[in-house]
Amino acid sequence: MTETLRVTYELRAEHDEDPRTKARDIAYEQTVELSPALVPGEVDERIPGRIEQLEPLPGDRLWQAVIAFPAAAIGTELTQALNVLFGNISLKRGIRIVDVEWPTSLLDAVGGPRLGIEGLRAMAGSPARPLVATAVKPMGLGAAELADICARFARGGIDIIKDDHGLANQPSAPYYERVARSQEAVTGAAAASGTRSVYFPNVSAPWPHMMERSEYARAQGCPGVLVNPMITGLDAIHSIADETGLAVLAHPSLTGSYFLPDHGIVPEVLLGDIFRMAGADAVIYPNVGGRFGFSGALCGRINDHLRRPFAGLRAAMPAPGGGMAVDQAGHWAARYGRDTILLIGGSLYAQGDLETGSRRLRAAVETFDERE
Amino acid sequence: MTETLRVTYELRAEHDEDPRTKARDIAYEQTVELSPALVPGEVDERIPGRIEQLEPLPGDRLWQAVIAFPAAAIGTELTQALNVLFGNISLKRGIRIVDVEWPTSLLDAVGGPRLGIEGLRAMAGSPARPLVATAVKPMGLGAAELADICARFARGGIDIIKDDHGLANQPSAPYYERVARSQEAVTGAAAASGTRSVYFPNVSAPWPHMMERSEYARAQGCPGVLVNPMITGLDAIHSIADETGLAVLAHPSLTGSYFLPDHGIVPEVLLGDIFRMAGADAVIYPNVGGRFGFSGALCGRINDHLRRPFAGLRAAMPAPGGGMAVDQAGHWAARYGRDTILLIGGSLYAQGDLETGSRRLRAAVETFDERE
Repeated sequence: MTETLRVTYELRAEHDEDPRTKARDIAYEQTVELSPALVPGEVDERIPGRIEQLEPLPGDRLWQAVIAFPAAAIGTELTQALNVLFGNISLKRGIRIVDVEWPTSLLDAVGGPRLGIEGLRAMAGSPARPLVATAVKPMGLGAAELADICARFARGGIDIIKDDHGLANQPSAPYYERVARSQEAVTGAAAASGTRSVYFPNVSAPWPHMMERSEYARAQGCPGVLVNPMITGLDAIHSIADETGLAVLAHPSLTGSYFLPDHGIVPEVLLGDIFRMAGADAVIYPNVGGRFGFSGALCGRINDHLRRPFAGLRAAMPAPGGGMAVDQAGHWAARYGRDTILLIGGSLYAQGDLETGSRRLRAAVETFDERE
Repeated sequence: MTETLRVTYELRAEHDEDPRTKARDIAYEQTVELSPALVPGEVDERIPGRIEQLEPLPGDRLWQAVIAFPAAAIGTELTQALNVLFGNISLKRGIRIVDVEWPTSLLDAVGGPRLGIEGLRAMAGSPARPLVATAVKPMGLGAAELADICARFARGGIDIIKDDHGLANQPSAPYYERVARSQEAVTGAAAASGTRSVYFPNVSAPWPHMMERSEYARAQGCPGVLVNPMITGLDAIHSIADETGLAVLAHPSLTGSYFLPDHGIVPEVLLGDIFRMAGADAVIYPNVGGRFGFSGALCGRINDHLRRPFAGLRAAMPAPGGGMAVDQAGHWAARYGRDTILLIGGSLYAQGDLETGSRRLRAAVETFDERE
């Protein structure tokens, strides 16, 4: 139990910048937003962050600082937690958040995933293997064509067939038409083939539309949706889950600006801790070896942050994707374990026949048990 | 009239990366999200971005690319516009968006500010000078103490007294108590002193709370609110404006990750174009010479993007702040012109007596007319 937000930073001192001054500026900038001399003594004792540690790191003018902020600077809302964590200092340079201990009061209040790993696995019939997912694309196809692609994936036994995160409400396939047809195609094909495939439409949209579209997805029988939370606002996840009861799969669109070498918030904190706090049942991230440059060690840390004990929050499902090959799915299944969604898009489309390719993907992960 | 999203990028080729391949990858990644060979021909002709220009720039492996995306890849929603602009490529390196031409259909659909410069100036009694604003702080004070600070600013004639962007719903000054007391203090002091000061509370919060707090602010008589749109989601601005009719002042918290030397979106596009499209009546940004390192030329470009003709969107008010001194207010008034909000916090607190300091600030900008 802790009532402190304890943040570990890597600080790069610029020019003749004193690292202790840089750390103290963070402690004040992120709370009272006044220079220390102007803060009333009684407030100064309670509110600004306290520098608990400051040590040089190997590297050019690099320091590690640990600053403890009181939970009282936050309250119990994730918006203000994010503001204290990186709001104004996002505008400064040479500040990278590498680890965070969260106040228990905040974790208890935010709630986390509604369904989480157990809920998603149950939705898929609790198979003794990782789940497999794919994306319906490309944008520009009509609703009927996209629905036909959905049907092929469902016949091949893909567990979760999600919209590509760029399928919004374009004229080629407007949301309501697309979702009605795709959901009908998936349920029809799954029933005919004896698979349990489900369809998650992308509901990322301006707020009232997003809520209406989520409600429509639920009414059509979709058990979950996809959302780009850094675009819609993180609170989209909880709002959708609370109002509709749907599962929410979170996409990392627009998160990449936080993942720079000496600026930002490390991915295991943003995609692991924060997306999980925001309520994501599963979190997509770019797998090692794909086109986005995450390391294998980082992918492991993201998985750990999504699944580890975290106050009373349910565990969330890692969904590595991006550049994974169908014929490597068995490898990734063994490496990441059962509580994973393997998201394979491009390589599945490259198989030619989507139904056969989907069967091949399912077969690759079905052998999972034997390898454990 | 254009039905194209035309984006100008600065690209840094990494290692042996070919700049044309990098540009083409962007054109496909941000739309069809498949490699060109897998895109059906009819879609390939219409949807992926087209490279209109690719030229070397002075600098190490630096290129300028112009890519034209069809409006059909977006539809008419700002969420998907942001996704096409920088969603997945935020996860790549060496990509900086330096200029954007927006599709007219998108600008017409998003609507922009409800009140804009004219509405805000009318709220302040249309004085022949820039407006002055300040922030109520520090967090950690009680609601009565914060309200007392509000009253001093109102007696001194500050036009817009806004909550510090970190005043949320902390136990020291819970939102409803703070806003009731602060608004009462401002209206009481303004009436007694013959000033027209108004109070804008910070409503940044998880979504349903944010909307309830905005409605409460309106019911108390506040004519506007402050929001941190990159934390709440950009659509907070329109949702609040549409549902309550309040003015919305947007804060740049958490925007800084986009403003790196060879990654992101330049501030005049994000804080200028995009915040204005999202409906901000005024946009706070860190002024040159303060603690965040924006150049004078950049501040001028932000002002221009907020005020320039932009399809049918109302102009928004620039609100430079951060490190501006009270005794320099006359200089900034002359430099930025009448359609500006000068946001002065720390320096006003350093004046000692807040009412006298506020009068001094007002006096510094009252002479504005004479200098023109």
